[in-house]
Amino acid sequence: MKKFSQNEIDKFIELLDFSKIEGGVVPMIAQDYKTNEVLMLAFANEEAVRQSLETGIACYYSRSRKKLWKKGEESGHIQEIQNIFIDCYRDTILLKVKQKVAACHTGFYSCFHREFVEGKLITRGKPVFNPDDVYKK
Amino acid sequence: MKKFSQNEIDKFIELLDFSKIEGGVVPMIAQDYKTNEVLMLAFANEEAVRQSLETGIACYYSRSRKKLWKKGEESGHIQEIQNIFIDCYRDTILLKVKQKVAACHTGFYSCFHREFVEGKLITRGKPVFNPDDVYKK
Repeated sequence: MKKFSQNEIDKFIELLDFSKIEGGVVPMIAQDYKTNEVLMLAFANEEAVRQSLETGIACYYSRSRKKLWKKGEESGHIQEIQNIFIDCYRDTILLKVKQKVAACHTGFYSCFHREFVEGKLITRGKPVFNPDDVYKK
Repeated sequence: MKKFSQNEIDKFIELLDFSKIEGGVVPMIAQDYKTNEVLMLAFANEEAVRQSLETGIACYYSRSRKKLWKKGEESGHIQEIQNIFIDCYRDTILLKVKQKVAACHTGFYSCFHREFVEGKLITRGKPVFNPDDVYKK
């Protein structure tokens, strides 16, 4: 798990361009640090990026709920940050993470578990957990 | 290279939620189909998605230039689509692609070639081409 100092976090924030998407957020991709499987994409505002780098655990910003989204807070399915990359325009973050249990709330390891084939969505892989057991109604 | 019929493309467009980001776009991630390396993230509007599925070659929408961005049109560094995935919220596309030469305009294979380590950006890997040779001034 990778944590950063306040000084390092300030430098990282300065590098990023939050101006491209309404609400001052950047897309943040989480990728399995071993297999390179893409797990999910969500958005992060400055506070979410700070939180992620301070704690070493991925934190996003929920644009619909308008608040920080500490991924795994309820389920325990946290993402421990191993490496942080940014793209050439400094407006997108790529996290290599150690994913606990699964990234997707539907029970699959990756949120990208459905492939579009011949006009239909085909589910790839099998669910890792039962959402009814993990998320209380 | 994967191409789709008009009927299939219409079905795919219906599945997608373009309402989340200003301008009616979805994030589209390109990933190397063999190594799973993440190459880039850009945005696609309905027209860009249609173009991608019709031709089998990734086409994005440039939000800054407000027009379709047929990636590789000038450089020849096209992305041949091998597989198309969508995420659980149907608001993000993941393309597995066969990348010609390199994805990044700076000459690196991936746009995510810089890692944030101890307060600094460290370049990972070596450039594949010289941008001055490829992009005419």
